[in-house]
Amino acid sequence: MAESMKGLHRTARCAELGESYIGKTVCMMGWVQKSRNKGGLIFTDLRDRSGILQILFEEQECGSEVFEKASELKQEYVIAVEGEVRSRGKDSNAALSTGSIELVAKSLRILAEADTPPFPIEADSKTKEELRLKYRYLDLRRPDLAKKIMTRARLSQLIRHFLSEEGFLEIETPTLIKSTPEGARDFLVPSRLHRGAFYALPQSPQLLKQLLMVSGMDRYFQLARCYRDEDLRADRQPEFTQVDMELSFVDIEDVLEVNERLLKYIFKEVCNVDIALPLQRMTWDYAMNHYGSDKPDLRFDMPLIELTEAVKDCGFSVFSDCAKAGGTVKGILVKGQAEMPRKKLDSYVELVKGYHAKGLAWYGVHEDGTVKSSFAKFLSEEDAKRLVEASGLEKGDLLLLVSDVKKNVVWDSLGALRLVLGKELDLIDKTQWKFLWITEFPMFEYSEELGRYQAMHHPFTMPMEEDLHYLDTDLSKIRAKAYDIVLNGTELGGGSVRIHQSDVQEKMLEKLGFTPERANEQFGFLMQAFRYGVPPHAGLAYGLDRLAMWMVGAETIRDVIAFPKGKDGSDAMMDAPAEVFDPQQLLDLNIAVIAEEEKSE
Amino acid sequence: MAESMKGLHRTARCAELGESYIGKTVCMMGWVQKSRNKGGLIFTDLRDRSGILQILFEEQECGSEVFEKASELKQEYVIAVEGEVRSRGKDSNAALSTGSIELVAKSLRILAEADTPPFPIEADSKTKEELRLKYRYLDLRRPDLAKKIMTRARLSQLIRHFLSEEGFLEIETPTLIKSTPEGARDFLVPSRLHRGAFYALPQSPQLLKQLLMVSGMDRYFQLARCYRDEDLRADRQPEFTQVDMELSFVDIEDVLEVNERLLKYIFKEVCNVDIALPLQRMTWDYAMNHYGSDKPDLRFDMPLIELTEAVKDCGFSVFSDCAKAGGTVKGILVKGQAEMPRKKLDSYVELVKGYHAKGLAWYGVHEDGTVKSSFAKFLSEEDAKRLVEASGLEKGDLLLLVSDVKKNVVWDSLGALRLVLGKELDLIDKTQWKFLWITEFPMFEYSEELGRYQAMHHPFTMPMEEDLHYLDTDLSKIRAKAYDIVLNGTELGGGSVRIHQSDVQEKMLEKLGFTPERANEQFGFLMQAFRYGVPPHAGLAYGLDRLAMWMVGAETIRDVIAFPKGKDGSDAMMDAPAEVFDPQQLLDLNIAVIAEEEKSE
Repeated sequence: MAESMKGLHRTARCAELGESYIGKTVCMMGWVQKSRNKGGLIFTDLRDRSGILQILFEEQECGSEVFEKASELKQEYVIAVEGEVRSRGKDSNAALSTGSIELVAKSLRILAEADTPPFPIEADSKTKEELRLKYRYLDLRRPDLAKKIMTRARLSQLIRHFLSEEGFLEIETPTLIKSTPEGARDFLVPSRLHRGAFYALPQSPQLLKQLLMVSGMDRYFQLARCYRDEDLRADRQPEFTQVDMELSFVDIEDVLEVNERLLKYIFKEVCNVDIALPLQRMTWDYAMNHYGSDKPDLRFDMPLIELTEAVKDCGFSVFSDCAKAGGTVKGILVKGQAEMPRKKLDSYVELVKGYHAKGLAWYGVHEDGTVKSSFAKFLSEEDAKRLVEASGLEKGDLLLLVSDVKKNVVWDSLGALRLVLGKELDLIDKTQWKFLWITEFPMFEYSEELGRYQAMHHPFTMPMEEDLHYLDTDLSKIRAKAYDIVLNGTELGGGSVRIHQSDVQEKMLEKLGFTPERANEQFGFLMQAFRYGVPPHAGLAYGLDRLAMWMVGAETIRDVIAFPKGKDGSDAMMDAPAEVFDPQQLLDLNIAVIAEEEKSE
Repeated sequence: MAESMKGLHRTARCAELGESYIGKTVCMMGWVQKSRNKGGLIFTDLRDRSGILQILFEEQECGSEVFEKASELKQEYVIAVEGEVRSRGKDSNAALSTGSIELVAKSLRILAEADTPPFPIEADSKTKEELRLKYRYLDLRRPDLAKKIMTRARLSQLIRHFLSEEGFLEIETPTLIKSTPEGARDFLVPSRLHRGAFYALPQSPQLLKQLLMVSGMDRYFQLARCYRDEDLRADRQPEFTQVDMELSFVDIEDVLEVNERLLKYIFKEVCNVDIALPLQRMTWDYAMNHYGSDKPDLRFDMPLIELTEAVKDCGFSVFSDCAKAGGTVKGILVKGQAEMPRKKLDSYVELVKGYHAKGLAWYGVHEDGTVKSSFAKFLSEEDAKRLVEASGLEKGDLLLLVSDVKKNVVWDSLGALRLVLGKELDLIDKTQWKFLWITEFPMFEYSEELGRYQAMHHPFTMPMEEDLHYLDTDLSKIRAKAYDIVLNGTELGGGSVRIHQSDVQEKMLEKLGFTPERANEQFGFLMQAFRYGVPPHAGLAYGLDRLAMWMVGAETIRDVIAFPKGKDGSDAMMDAPAEVFDPQQLLDLNIAVIAEEEKSE
């Protein structure tokens, strides 16, 4: 039976005790990590969120009644212990922060008993995640997971502190908003008071933060809950948190500058990493051409090498025809890998085919000078020389090549291959923190599926002034004032300077295929706001979960979320989503669930 | 046509300029508050969130082209001005914080033009709220409203700072959770991936924060978005923000203590008010008996006077019969109001009837010693003397009385009357900040409607140890370890010590009429968690919107919310809720809207 803590007052958390407490009487509370009787003494490890403290029950110190009770302690019991802190002297345990002291118990209360947990409460659990998610409250007791959640809390606090000091106001924006189906699918919330009408949960506060700029709030931020009803991939959550910000009277440089200082601050405070400023920058075009990615991992180099010119007139018609047709031939030079087994090469051929490449060609030179290649037999001596020179190939090296009339295919396939090579050849320096701004994104990307151009960022992104004249001639040439921040090959966040002229905004929506009616229906309130004096403004948003994940070194986003959803968007712990308890709930909302048959009619 | 801000960099916000800038060249940006040509000079008031700065265009300083442009400035144009800061000398304007300086313009760019706003951008708007909500982004430009939103942002930051320093972790809890229909109505979110299943938006993170305590997080807080699908009363919002906290290994005193320091801190920082600690405390029973309210406004006294004993044997049978039947007679002594007009008295009779009182009796003594009373004719001299003595009535005073067999009726009606008297007689000292803890709430309240007891706070509240034995005999006698914090007659927040023993929790749910199946279906995950070692824990939550409203002196909760909903739960600015754009959205969610006819079938 649980005892009350009446009259007791906890002195400190376990790891807050130290040698300064030696000789003092304290009251400690927490969970029993383990308890064992050894040589007539009972040693109990007491655990709380701060760490572990050793408690010693000696019968002559605590009396037989307390000793008896202590002998019944089981793991995860919640206890309160009063006693005196003693030095462990030569028995110190260096593995514990409190390892040089112990608490010699005088009294003991069992505040709550506990069933044996379904898995051990310990770091580096081998328990499968499904079970851990069902008992998330127990999983969170594991010190390594608890620490990640605590660090995330600290990270949020640091971000808020920094941005507040910089004049940003944290303003809460509504989450029951209008559905504006661009991008991902909205979660909808049926309205009870307005029959047949729905709120949407925000995919981001984009329009609202722009309206805050219209309202003169000048600098806004929010750790904003966002929602996307997507088919869940490995590391996605239906609800997630964005560090969302927007600034008025700024251009790109101002946004990048304050964000660089923010990143420097939080990485120093949380990871004790010194980031050198300014951060490296790269245009989107450069990144794609040199790394085949708009989020290149720069912890290793191995760039894509431009070879189109070098193979234009060679005897290998796959390359020369491609080059003459305006296509692209690029290669990756893999130092010292001329002896790469055929099987490995075949696996890379399969890899690039997954990115729509027609094949992967290779050209290696063994240490003895002999060549192994999938296409050397088509090359003249001159052809081969030109290829070797253009690629910088030396004895022992291997060159892997892809050609295609579409640049995208070459970029995507070699970009992916580069990452795999980096991993498989262990080229990635894991001690590095390689930050990178990607700038000058294309404004539009052509969607084969929709047969029209789409906004690469979103329809409110400002084109670069010098490209505005292409709006009526060639949308593919327009670069946007958009930027992404990349860390070690992951996109941490992104943003853009926004359009602040209603005429440009209207034209943009038209180019994106919005009829005036549709534009008005979806974004009318923004267009209207733009008529009343909009300051130049720009913003950026980070995925907080992903940022936290990097900073704490977690392997999944779920490790930095207290109660994450599982892969099918469900919560195994509380069993959500679920059918409603009372059909009246749906009637009140004027909705009904439709059966599969009805749906297909 | 809008000009670009390319090459410009804003020096500071308007009110950040001061005399230290005199003689310096600066670049300022903002909105035109007003612009007027006076004696060949153009005076333009530039506004941003910080305040207003006077700009002076002199043709000989800025040249005729700039002067020409300046003469076209209209209100709400967004402009950038470069020039030199000059002292205004004897022309200083003490009404402006920047009133001793002005900016003498050298150049001007019009960053955005503006249509004439639908209402003036000025403090103390007379515009009706419907229009202001539709153009919320313009309403937010009004300095008084902007200041309230900014203060709220600062308040949030201060709360976060204080609680973080006290060892609380801000942990985000999910908002797509399981529907647990206790209390208000849930908003539901249909699941696309799980046919026929729904998430609910949380009414509060109650269960999740308790699970965080089970998980050992020790101290949690969150500025949590909460949702209630209620019929909207004047000052309710469907989504609102709660300062939510929970602490482990604590009893009531610990919770009250840290919250008193929190309140002292934020009221000092935000309102420059010094709150004396400890705050006043009152049991629920005392508050009801003496003020007829569980949130008494103590800025004026005028308590309810217990008169049952004094009238028990009097000749006025309404009172004496009531007293003998175990009922209650109470009065309010209104000093110096013996001359209150009959019409006013009649309005009070109507008032108390609204609270189910059968009537309101009065007994006044004029300065000349004569009595005016609705029931004095039934009293003997002795009866009258007893009444006068018991109530402390003096010449010129008026005593207002209510009797009823139900204490509630007397409390509610006189409690309401007391507040009206306080207002109408101008007894409320508006300079006072009267904080008050209400403690020892009843655990249960009987619902006539449901024919059973309900939890007054919620089913997880811990009964007081000394009352636990009533669980099997008389639920009405059980007091809860619950507490509310009251300021000037408004409930700012409340909380309780929670049950942390699964057997007590199960019994509580049983007493609240839950079948074991239903209890398991709704709260099974909590009950299960309670089997694995739960620390004693307690918590509290404030309504942040209401708190901010008090602190900034707003008259409606909408004034401290950037984008509030209107009275019918709709957003007039973005037109939400709305019908979906594409019927496929509903098909994807496996739901259909049902027509009124179908519903009534």
